[in-house]
Amino acid sequence: MSESNAVLIGRKPVMNYVLACITLFHGGAKEVSVKARGRSINRAVDVVEVVRRRFLPDVKVKKIGIGTEQLAPREEGGTPTNVSTIEITLGH
Amino acid sequence: MSESNAVLIGRKPVMNYVLACITLFHGGAKEVSVKARGRSINRAVDVVEVVRRRFLPDVKVKKIGIGTEQLAPREEGGTPTNVSTIEITLGH
Repeated sequence: MSESNAVLIGRKPVMNYVLACITLFHGGAKEVSVKARGRSINRAVDVVEVVRRRFLPDVKVKKIGIGTEQLAPREEGGTPTNVSTIEITLGH
Repeated sequence: MSESNAVLIGRKPVMNYVLACITLFHGGAKEVSVKARGRSINRAVDVVEVVRRRFLPDVKVKKIGIGTEQLAPREEGGTPTNVSTIEITLGH
């Protein structure tokens, strides 16, 4: 899958990301990958649920993966922090 | 799977739920299901990541499911609200 079909979830309203997913599918994408980390993970699930329940009922959740990323310390000598990640792949 | 092997994620610190998972596995559970909804979803992912990375490396993520639950309106005549859910099944 091409990385250009990824939607990275941040702090904007859910509908912004829903629209991004719909635009990718309407542009011919076979799969769209919704990615988030930390406190944006619940928003990623919201986005996927709105996309498939309200707008694109023929789109299915193909894969869900979770993981951990290590972030560099904020200041020199600090300890790195771990952040959880999710990647939800949608497709026809 | 027996419902008694479910850990429902709420607003407590992550380590409380990590301990609950570990206790179930040490008590002989073959599978433990971590469930959350709404803004607790990111905490559910944190719990699973801490359990399998720090404490029980032989435990794998067997299944991840997401969905939507409809909550009854808070007041009579109100509209029901939708809340996203996640269920992560851990097992050997």
